[in-house]
Amino acid sequence: MPQLRIALAQVNTCVGDLDGNADTVVTWTRKAAEAGAHVALFPEMALTGYPVEDLALRLSFSDAARRTLESLAERLVTAGCADVAVFVGYLDRDDAGPRNAAAVLYQGAVVARQFKHFLPNYGVFDEYRIFKPGNELDVVRLHGLDIGMVICEDIWQDGGPIAALGAAGVDLVLVPNASPYERNKDDQRLPLVAGRAREAGAPLAYVNWVGGQDELVFDGDSMVVDATGNVLARAPQFVEHLLVLDLDLPAGDGHKSGEVLGFDVRRVTLSDRPLPAWPPMPAPPIAPPLPELEEVWSALVTGLRDYTRKNGFASAVLALSGGIDSALVAALAVDALGPDAVYAVSMPSDYSSEHSRTDAAQLAQRTGLHYSVQPIADMVRVFVEQLGLTGLAEENVQARCRGVALMALSNSAGHLVLATGNKSELAVGYSTIYGDAVGGFAPIKDVSKTMVWALARWRNVAAAERGEVPPIPENSITKPPSAELRPGQLDTDTLPDYLLLDDVLDDYVEGDRGYADLLAAGFDPALVERVLRMVDAAEYKRRQYPPGTKISLKAFGRDRRLPITNAWRERSVIPS
Amino acid sequence: MPQLRIALAQVNTCVGDLDGNADTVVTWTRKAAEAGAHVALFPEMALTGYPVEDLALRLSFSDAARRTLESLAERLVTAGCADVAVFVGYLDRDDAGPRNAAAVLYQGAVVARQFKHFLPNYGVFDEYRIFKPGNELDVVRLHGLDIGMVICEDIWQDGGPIAALGAAGVDLVLVPNASPYERNKDDQRLPLVAGRAREAGAPLAYVNWVGGQDELVFDGDSMVVDATGNVLARAPQFVEHLLVLDLDLPAGDGHKSGEVLGFDVRRVTLSDRPLPAWPPMPAPPIAPPLPELEEVWSALVTGLRDYTRKNGFASAVLALSGGIDSALVAALAVDALGPDAVYAVSMPSDYSSEHSRTDAAQLAQRTGLHYSVQPIADMVRVFVEQLGLTGLAEENVQARCRGVALMALSNSAGHLVLATGNKSELAVGYSTIYGDAVGGFAPIKDVSKTMVWALARWRNVAAAERGEVPPIPENSITKPPSAELRPGQLDTDTLPDYLLLDDVLDDYVEGDRGYADLLAAGFDPALVERVLRMVDAAEYKRRQYPPGTKISLKAFGRDRRLPITNAWRERSVIPS
Repeated sequence: MPQLRIALAQVNTCVGDLDGNADTVVTWTRKAAEAGAHVALFPEMALTGYPVEDLALRLSFSDAARRTLESLAERLVTAGCADVAVFVGYLDRDDAGPRNAAAVLYQGAVVARQFKHFLPNYGVFDEYRIFKPGNELDVVRLHGLDIGMVICEDIWQDGGPIAALGAAGVDLVLVPNASPYERNKDDQRLPLVAGRAREAGAPLAYVNWVGGQDELVFDGDSMVVDATGNVLARAPQFVEHLLVLDLDLPAGDGHKSGEVLGFDVRRVTLSDRPLPAWPPMPAPPIAPPLPELEEVWSALVTGLRDYTRKNGFASAVLALSGGIDSALVAALAVDALGPDAVYAVSMPSDYSSEHSRTDAAQLAQRTGLHYSVQPIADMVRVFVEQLGLTGLAEENVQARCRGVALMALSNSAGHLVLATGNKSELAVGYSTIYGDAVGGFAPIKDVSKTMVWALARWRNVAAAERGEVPPIPENSITKPPSAELRPGQLDTDTLPDYLLLDDVLDDYVEGDRGYADLLAAGFDPALVERVLRMVDAAEYKRRQYPPGTKISLKAFGRDRRLPITNAWRERSVIPS
Repeated sequence: MPQLRIALAQVNTCVGDLDGNADTVVTWTRKAAEAGAHVALFPEMALTGYPVEDLALRLSFSDAARRTLESLAERLVTAGCADVAVFVGYLDRDDAGPRNAAAVLYQGAVVARQFKHFLPNYGVFDEYRIFKPGNELDVVRLHGLDIGMVICEDIWQDGGPIAALGAAGVDLVLVPNASPYERNKDDQRLPLVAGRAREAGAPLAYVNWVGGQDELVFDGDSMVVDATGNVLARAPQFVEHLLVLDLDLPAGDGHKSGEVLGFDVRRVTLSDRPLPAWPPMPAPPIAPPLPELEEVWSALVTGLRDYTRKNGFASAVLALSGGIDSALVAALAVDALGPDAVYAVSMPSDYSSEHSRTDAAQLAQRTGLHYSVQPIADMVRVFVEQLGLTGLAEENVQARCRGVALMALSNSAGHLVLATGNKSELAVGYSTIYGDAVGGFAPIKDVSKTMVWALARWRNVAAAERGEVPPIPENSITKPPSAELRPGQLDTDTLPDYLLLDDVLDDYVEGDRGYADLLAAGFDPALVERVLRMVDAAEYKRRQYPPGTKISLKAFGRDRRLPITNAWRERSVIPS
């Protein structure tokens, strides 16, 4: 028979919106209460949004966050949720500095609060910069059951607070998270969560944020495992969801407090008496993780939708070239915002092929987005003639006239401009700064060219399977890629075949492998030399590129911080 | 009588250029040897350049840095410097991870090496991300004198390795630094260095990097103080310099090794016997710190020159509007690169005033830079007519046509494009993204508008004092600022008076003060509200702005990391 009903609130809150986020906590706690839950668990820093970055350092913000938490405790009583123990992440601050904190709200008061122990300071994370680590573990006794909590990174590092909770003795561990999506990360989460549950000797409930915040997207994937690591429930990815389940928790004994394995374990008793028995609810479904391409697609849609919505845009505009990149971005935008909120412009030049226009028009027809044509020949001509441009300067002026036109349309109508470059281009600098690189957001910035094709094919198949028109014209997928900035130009004039290029980039950018390693991996030395030179030389362009959704282990941006002024070149001859 | 002659090599090395930097160490050690020095001290990570950012994490780079250090030890012998003990910063790596390290090279070998203890992870620094801290202190006995070393941040934090060296007993402390320039930082350095010398109970030699690296510039300001904190020698700022002096070092006794105050003190004896007496050399001059405006000017010139040179550009191009910002950038560029390497373009539109052209032309004449005129009316007209633009969209198209033209000139001739925006504009978003914001480098990005005027006046006075023509036309300094994107437009149509604006910005951006604090400081609530909204809303523009030299405590960029998607607004009513 169950002893406790818990609800994991996989919600989408917004950075900085303290009032709105508090409303979200009230709304979802009420849902939890209506479902009969005794505990509601919210993500890491649900009240402030995540990551708040240097806002954590601003006193006015941390003060407001603390006050919002306290008023939230009272609001929950008014909302009829006094008897639900609400575990919620927030920003705290004490004499030591700002804290990544989680609190327990119960019957109108903040009854427990503790701080994150391990502060991630790698990849996209800068938490050592903005937080001080905590050493306390507050274990709350509710209905005779001892509930401990740790925060996100605390379960990713060995020798941490979970071991201390296990040694101290707890009946249940709750873990609020803000764990950004990366391809294949969900494959790591379940074994990790299962292992920590075994380490704690107790069931573990893991709740993760869902939604987009600048370059990060959170996939949810909240789950509950039992003390042996078996999955009891798992929430679907990329949607807000309340995961409610009954837990059968045999109360342990011999519970320690005080110093345990270097942590300060504190006990707070809310209620000692076990609940009367009730008939267990049916177990909630265990949502399987999405297949890879569908998962990536969902991440990209979520990231684009939330950037648009949370920054107050009602519509987006993009340049539609007939090529695969802009076709994919258009399809993503239609899925994220609806066709009526997407404006696509074909801007043919003298070098644009006939199929550029027809493919673009066909995509517009298939998806129902707003479509217009603005030839750039007259604009380009003035620049070329007045300034006497040739070669690269002439090529770039075409891309830049498109950029100016797109921005003008954005200024006139208030659209968010979408840049359509992919990760492979961004890596080697195969784009025109202030040209095709203009935009407020770059939805496929972290998607390699080979994955662009794979996603396009997947999206078309998915449409066909649902009996819908595939959004992307087949010709956009199959034709050889070209920037069409001079007659007969092909990407392969400048770049290696994308399959090969992406392979090298994967090793150099994500793998951070050096020249010798790349040769050992079997790549041709001249190819390696050429690709690496292009990547290194394009750093300055990447710095001015718009933000876009991270889907890989290492996206350009905060994940990979390299100097622009950098004379280091990977090479064969290294001083011996 | 002196016991030791030391040489502080205040040099300019380049990030990633291991071979070139090793050459620099050899060259300057030879100079030190020729000056009779027994010790040569180089800055923090002199061999790799600083900051290397995520290059520290790349195995091929740290391996190469280690190998370069070892080959450098041998090269110094060949160069006739075997008997100079060379203290040099480099990148190391061991099982724990990458290390910010300093080594002692002597008679062809690496005889000591230790790692930085305190890793700065605030402001522009991310050292906790890329390094592991060290706990060892290598004290080298040379000619019977015990020489300890610590690295940069190690002297900025209390309770650190200096106290341990003091307790263990040393005769001299050497400190390699890479301490970026900030206004007034030199006022802090001397008292800090003096205090640490007293703490160590020994003279302290502080050597700092000079030169520019992306947004950072290093001013040198190397110095030596005696055990009571009195300055013995101080190098001039912003120039490479070898500071050589004799030190009178009474050898102490009772020297400890092993664990001292939590550090692991290791002793390495190179030579026990004191040197025979020699007649002391004349004391080197004590260079006074530069007056404030000259110091800022030197920082901006150094930052611009090194960005240009180290990134392989021979020339720069900028748009000259006749206004004060572009006039100041032109004067800086001429000082940094010489007039023959600077190309200025006046790009008048229909709304440009007559004085715009004459002031720009006059600056060209005064400085001798290359000057041309490219009216943008024809370019703008095509966009405005074809796209039917009005209002803000029409204003922005003018700025963007200038941006396209400037980039075309850069593409044609290989110039580095300079953006001319100042910090006040960047703060409130008073610039056109992809318009006046285009550029590879933004020399006055961290200079407030009020300081722009002050620098212009200072530069003209300095010219007059040297009997030269003041570079900046008086009218550019005195006329009311205008973007000239519509008839009769003035900055004050949109912005508060710059004196007031800069005052608010100083408190909000550098001070990170909240709404209540700003009101308490006496600012008008409506003004505060308006300015803060503008600053918050412009975050997206700042992300795509070019890099530029940091001169303030908190420059936009790595110093101030805020989300773009951010619903937090400083306001009067905060949840109670």
